[in-house]
Amino acid sequence: MNQVPLILASGSPRRKFLLKQIGLDFQVIPSDIYEDFSLRLPSKDFAEHFAKLKAHSVANQFPDRLVIGADTIVVFNNKILGKPSNKEEGTEMLSWLSGKTHTVITGVCLELKDQKICEIFSEETRVTFQHLSKNEIQNYIETYNPLDKAGSYGIQDWFSVCVKKVNGCYYNVVGFPLSAFYQKYKAIISTF
Amino acid sequence: MNQVPLILASGSPRRKFLLKQIGLDFQVIPSDIYEDFSLRLPSKDFAEHFAKLKAHSVANQFPDRLVIGADTIVVFNNKILGKPSNKEEGTEMLSWLSGKTHTVITGVCLELKDQKICEIFSEETRVTFQHLSKNEIQNYIETYNPLDKAGSYGIQDWFSVCVKKVNGCYYNVVGFPLSAFYQKYKAIISTF
Repeated sequence: MNQVPLILASGSPRRKFLLKQIGLDFQVIPSDIYEDFSLRLPSKDFAEHFAKLKAHSVANQFPDRLVIGADTIVVFNNKILGKPSNKEEGTEMLSWLSGKTHTVITGVCLELKDQKICEIFSEETRVTFQHLSKNEIQNYIETYNPLDKAGSYGIQDWFSVCVKKVNGCYYNVVGFPLSAFYQKYKAIISTF
Repeated sequence: MNQVPLILASGSPRRKFLLKQIGLDFQVIPSDIYEDFSLRLPSKDFAEHFAKLKAHSVANQFPDRLVIGADTIVVFNNKILGKPSNKEEGTEMLSWLSGKTHTVITGVCLELKDQKICEIFSEETRVTFQHLSKNEIQNYIETYNPLDKAGSYGIQDWFSVCVKKVNGCYYNVVGFPLSAFYQKYKAIISTF
């Protein structure tokens, strides 16, 4: 369905997998943006801010391509959780989230610099966990080493048994809101 | 994590994939049960009834194994939708569901005959579709030929862009409620 060359400005294997799932051809050029968690912004603005920075940094090098930037965060008790820096932090995050409901937000920026197109949006999904035992958390952290995932879990691996309920876009929790993206993408390519 | 030999009494490649995702070892022995859609039962009872029949038919041959039977249906406007019998029926189903919310129910039966264990339960998930154009429906039916799927769609393929929102267990929509299953499975194996 591609009508303009696409670049995914993200090194996430999950985002790559999802875009392939919907039949898109694209190049992967990860941005070099560092996500600064000390930045004080409302959570939606935070995710959109970094999605925008990621898209911008790659769009500046490839102004004739449609560049996709995305940033996924987990929000619990008004605290933004990114990727854990080590196993201890991962264990702590899962203990907080056990038996509770949190929000996953992915900010997305679609930029085609030459055409002055820059669409920014975000998608929120509520996720409710089962109660997790200490053993389950420890086994999960040791076996799956989810240090590359916001909130320290992958809803698409063994951890799926721990997710009681999703309210919103499931793929947003994996790392990219396919349905919301597709609506924006359709609107952009319809203008060519 | 297996502590008792498991049999999946279903030929569905999606159920097989999901049970592998959570690290289970199992044998696949599809039941030969015919799903009779003329049977008048409330939708939850319908799905549980056929899950039970599927598990029973295999458990009778393998009474010392834990047999998993499952049946997934789509319910819209009090009508039960199974797998479409041809492309025209598939197209009709997607036109009904376009822009609306429907319910996916999977009935599950876990039977270990020798130990007189027979757990039956079901899981319901609400699914909201984007508005689908005639073109999108036609392309999807022609390209993906979803005749082996209840409701005529696969939430895990291209169709993911058409699903606006899920409320409940996502994997239930794929064909097997992983989280609810795991809770029951843990309870059963803890008694050995």
